[in-house]
Amino acid sequence: MLEIINHGEIREIRLARPPVNALNTELVELLTKSLREAATDSGAVVLSGREHVFSAGLDVVELMQLDREGIRNFWGKFFDLLETVARSPIPVAAAITGHSPAGGAVICLMCDYRVMSSGDYRIGLNETRVGLIIPPVLQNAMARLVGPRVAEHMLVDGTLIDSEEALKTGFVDALESGYQATIQHAVQWCEELLSLPRHAMLGNRAIARAHYKQEFASHTDESIASFVDTWFSDETQTVMNALVTQLKSKN
Amino acid sequence: MLEIINHGEIREIRLARPPVNALNTELVELLTKSLREAATDSGAVVLSGREHVFSAGLDVVELMQLDREGIRNFWGKFFDLLETVARSPIPVAAAITGHSPAGGAVICLMCDYRVMSSGDYRIGLNETRVGLIIPPVLQNAMARLVGPRVAEHMLVDGTLIDSEEALKTGFVDALESGYQATIQHAVQWCEELLSLPRHAMLGNRAIARAHYKQEFASHTDESIASFVDTWFSDETQTVMNALVTQLKSKN
Amino acid sequence: MLEIINHGEIREIRLARPPVNALNTELVELLTKSLREAATDSGAVVLSGREHVFSAGLDVVELMQLDREGIRNFWGKFFDLLETVARSPIPVAAAITGHSPAGGAVICLMCDYRVMSSGDYRIGLNETRVGLIIPPVLQNAMARLVGPRVAEHMLVDGTLIDSEEALKTGFVDALESGYQATIQHAVQWCEELLSLPRHAMLGNRAIARAHYKQEFASHTDESIASFVDTWFSDETQTVMNALVTQLKSKN
Repeated sequence: MLEIINHGEIREIRLARPPVNALNTELVELLTKSLREAATDSGAVVLSGREHVFSAGLDVVELMQLDREGIRNFWGKFFDLLETVARSPIPVAAAITGHSPAGGAVICLMCDYRVMSSGDYRIGLNETRVGLIIPPVLQNAMARLVGPRVAEHMLVDGTLIDSEEALKTGFVDALESGYQATIQHAVQWCEELLSLPRHAMLGNRAIARAHYKQEFASHTDESIASFVDTWFSDETQTVMNALVTQLKSKN
Repeated sequence: MLEIINHGEIREIRLARPPVNALNTELVELLTKSLREAATDSGAVVLSGREHVFSAGLDVVELMQLDREGIRNFWGKFFDLLETVARSPIPVAAAITGHSPAGGAVICLMCDYRVMSSGDYRIGLNETRVGLIIPPVLQNAMARLVGPRVAEHMLVDGTLIDSEEALKTGFVDALESGYQATIQHAVQWCEELLSLPRHAMLGNRAIARAHYKQEFASHTDESIASFVDTWFSDETQTVMNALVTQLKSKN
Repeated sequence: MLEIINHGEIREIRLARPPVNALNTELVELLTKSLREAATDSGAVVLSGREHVFSAGLDVVELMQLDREGIRNFWGKFFDLLETVARSPIPVAAAITGHSPAGGAVICLMCDYRVMSSGDYRIGLNETRVGLIIPPVLQNAMARLVGPRVAEHMLVDGTLIDSEEALKTGFVDALESGYQATIQHAVQWCEELLSLPRHAMLGNRAIARAHYKQEFASHTDESIASFVDTWFSDETQTVMNALVTQLKSKN
């Protein structure tokens, strides 16, 4: 599900769960574990995806088979992953190699830097459109990138935007043409940081990102319970079932 | 003073107090009441104005006749209105059909979305220029739209900007040519939101706007007393009297 | 070390410590004292520099001769200066007449308004590159100008930007061509503010900048101790010594 490629001091963790790197419990756990390992034996991390798709988000087909306890477990583990990215002691760059809606976009939000492949790829938090509610910690992370006004509009409306618009709004920091070039750009961004006085670079970074500690501390069991309730609400189940039918008919 | 026009599920509340929709105690009360009613029997609200003027702001001529108790009462009611807009359980779009300085602009700040008629119309918080001090909750709302740097400059300087500049800074979200088209744009914006999974759209919106609860809780009796003191200060009375003389000579 | 030039109600405080207005303990103390005096007998302040250089930042050559107590003393006094600018009861405009890296840029951040001479001049917080860590209060001030996303990137990377980029990101508010014109622009900006109803202008300004009180209250003895520790760390001493050697070979 993951490929590990070392570029000198930089650890590339490549999502490799065909066809679309859908996030199920196993992939989420592996990714968290892999990030924690990298933090002990690498200088920086690049998170990359497959050509044309970084991650299509949550594996709805698999999640729809879970009971309340399964969903609670998944959602808790997904937040462990997000907190691991956001509070990583070393820089994490996202090489967004293609589409990255919903859960895929949320992982990117938490990284230090985002470079996206140019072209007709979509990114954004379209949770409204699949009946899900985005917790404050994730909404705040998005507001930090694009500003609170634009974030509110995109989050309420559930809009997906293309790579050009993502650059314009600040959702991503740079565009790059082509799969390898996108990954290479992220690696070079890490290399540049690692060439600087290390203690000072990491110290300034830690202060710039210190707010994530409180943010994630405010994400409580109650927030998780609320997510589980929404998941099993009639509205969300109806939207999700339609989505699953649509996905299955595609295959 | 108000016209109510239903567009399916969407309630248009149109300010209709000629010539310039100046905000006096009665209009403010009616508007608050009307918004509360809409929240129980509509899906979304459009606030609109007259052709060429959304609202010229506070009715200075009428307010200048009030004593301390009258001003305190008005200011308390104006904040009830602002809180009702900001914390509305359903989306509120502003169709800014023309000029919208000071109090007119403040109402727009609190809405979910702002579309303004293009053309030589002015909007902004010019309170400095009429001797008034803008409380933190309103300054913060403006910073949320245009960023704290630009907000500080515009608030301290009391600048009014035209519609093009309003779009560029983020004070408004879109421009539309013509009176009916501006209103129609706001209605369509509401329609799009109402076409989405309702519970998720409202849930994401509630989180994006949750901060307004604390913001308004911090607007205390002390803040109101401070506004009343400023109102009756020599500087403000001098500026206001000059303004009233100017307005009367126009009529 | 300072030249004082009165433009009517506006006090220009011009940094005049050749060759590059490097900030040592004495200049920092003089500047703080001068700002406090201006607050009692002027309407607004313009901080200006020499032609081609506003300030090259901390006087590293002199500071490298200080012991822990000397560095602690300097850093405390530098923060007194920054707090004096940020919490000035009267407006302070920076006329950034040339290069303004690190400590020079930090002073500018705290002003109400920044006009910079156009041309090949550099500004920014490049502390990472000289091994220093920027405390939260300064990082937050920068995020207030350029947004948290761009601030994080610039602070971690230690990038210096030219005047065009400074305008584009919001690090400065305006560009002006030429030394005298830059100062004159800042003076006129102050004059415009002083032409407005004074109590209201200052009242709105006080609210817009009220957050600096808590910001500086959070800058504790512990933060200062942490700066001193970093200063005397091997990494920082190595970088600083290389810098001093480079500076001395230039002269």
